[in-house]
Amino acid sequence: MLEQVILIFSALATVAFAVTGVMAAWAKSMDLFGAVILAVVTSVGGGTIRDILLGIDPVFWISDPTLFYIALVAGLASFPIIRRIGEIRERWLAYIDACGLALFTIVGVSIAESVGAAAPIAIIMGMITGCGGGILRDVLADRVPYVFSSEIYATASLAGGAVFYLMPLRPGSYVVGFLAVLILRLLAIHKGWGLPSFGHRRDTR
Amino acid sequence: MLEQVILIFSALATVAFAVTGVMAAWAKSMDLFGAVILAVVTSVGGGTIRDILLGIDPVFWISDPTLFYIALVAGLASFPIIRRIGEIRERWLAYIDACGLALFTIVGVSIAESVGAAAPIAIIMGMITGCGGGILRDVLADRVPYVFSSEIYATASLAGGAVFYLMPLRPGSYVVGFLAVLILRLLAIHKGWGLPSFGHRRDTR
Amino acid sequence: MLEQVILIFSALATVAFAVTGVMAAWAKSMDLFGAVILAVVTSVGGGTIRDILLGIDPVFWISDPTLFYIALVAGLASFPIIRRIGEIRERWLAYIDACGLALFTIVGVSIAESVGAAAPIAIIMGMITGCGGGILRDVLADRVPYVFSSEIYATASLAGGAVFYLMPLRPGSYVVGFLAVLILRLLAIHKGWGLPSFGHRRDTR
Repeated sequence: MLEQVILIFSALATVAFAVTGVMAAWAKSMDLFGAVILAVVTSVGGGTIRDILLGIDPVFWISDPTLFYIALVAGLASFPIIRRIGEIRERWLAYIDACGLALFTIVGVSIAESVGAAAPIAIIMGMITGCGGGILRDVLADRVPYVFSSEIYATASLAGGAVFYLMPLRPGSYVVGFLAVLILRLLAIHKGWGLPSFGHRRDTR
Repeated sequence: MLEQVILIFSALATVAFAVTGVMAAWAKSMDLFGAVILAVVTSVGGGTIRDILLGIDPVFWISDPTLFYIALVAGLASFPIIRRIGEIRERWLAYIDACGLALFTIVGVSIAESVGAAAPIAIIMGMITGCGGGILRDVLADRVPYVFSSEIYATASLAGGAVFYLMPLRPGSYVVGFLAVLILRLLAIHKGWGLPSFGHRRDTR
Repeated sequence: MLEQVILIFSALATVAFAVTGVMAAWAKSMDLFGAVILAVVTSVGGGTIRDILLGIDPVFWISDPTLFYIALVAGLASFPIIRRIGEIRERWLAYIDACGLALFTIVGVSIAESVGAAAPIAIIMGMITGCGGGILRDVLADRVPYVFSSEIYATASLAGGAVFYLMPLRPGSYVVGFLAVLILRLLAIHKGWGLPSFGHRRDTR
């Protein structure tokens, strides 16, 4: 049951991440190829960095391409839609993206733990799994990664990943960790919570 | 015989890719070090990404540095030339670059196949081998990767890689796959063929 | 004794590199998360690229997170300071950075040698260990890597790495190699030595 739930959430998250990739391609006037590459990179990029750092060979989407194919199809399918309507500013996309962040975080911590990583490293691998794809997307789109100056995003991932890691009981901890990331991220979106930033120097000096 | 042909083509491709790296360094007013790094990254970057994703340790140019040295020398040699004459807009460079794309694609598919990658993954590894170096070059030169909005480039690589993969007879399939990429790319250059793009929204709506 | 010296220098170098990461985050108005990520990436990024290319799994800071934690703390600690005083242009930071370059170069060559890399590859791995973090930092901060157009930096690393590799006697060669990088880099800073560059075309034609 847990596995099916994870698969469904992973598929949803992959689609949401892919759509943000296509929107980045739209912002930079790329073509269909650029859009699909950014879709795939945003979706599977975080897990790819995690696997490379942990030394898991080959990376996960070569062992099992399911999510890779979902990202590919999502990129292809959203291209004509975004070409017609432009950037999607709908709230629901941010919500699915938050689900994706939460899910990928927990999966990432879990995988790092399974190969014996220490607690702080495992939590950071969760954050990399959740945020790494978006960072790669922004690097390929030649802009400063969104996550480096947005409302609480990576921090939600770190906090929820820590909750997940520290809770003894599985599979209950999956649910609690997932909800911790999700709720923190949703609150941050609605309240506009951000970390201290160099971008508001005048306010904070 | 096939191996010698591959080596000669690889060397030519490496030189062409290295020259595009030095030209990117020129466009960003880099120094000799930047130029040589971009030359090497453009030449060996695609195969490096492929090896990292597939878990081939160490990467190919550490096992056999021949192409690495060729890229290094090509970068060093073309620096004073490009410093004197500026950007090279000659057609022959695009032609050799197309040969490089074609050759690296086939080599990439072939290597991925040899470590047991599924068909779509192998074809994508061919594309990464052919295009990855140019993407890294553009990321390091702080610009949107050319391949994300150019005429048909990666698509030629994917199509030719698929032809190569699906043809049963070796070594004939090497020649056919190579020619498929090359001809598609040359046609795209001459006819200005491109994919649907976010960059021409007005024309296509 | 040598090991303690290396650890102390590594810690100092990690702090200096981390501070340059936080300054890059400052220049791009990032928040605390962006600053800490750039601090860590600048500090451990070079060794991470080296380990990935050489196929050392997992990368060094997962096996032993000491330097990772030092970078993390240095990033967190320097954030409020740089937020208050802005960019640090003090000479001493460039001096510690030069020590870091020198030390990481020698460590990198030494590790590459220990896994059997050929001489030119080992020397290049030393350069990647010393310079790779700064390149990643600048890519994540969406700017052309500093090292591609600065005074002599990577070249000092290559020259000192070669001296280290070629000297037969250990541990004396550690000291000589380290001093070779350091002195070259300090001279370059003070004299403004640079490589031939595309940036001064008018002067050199």
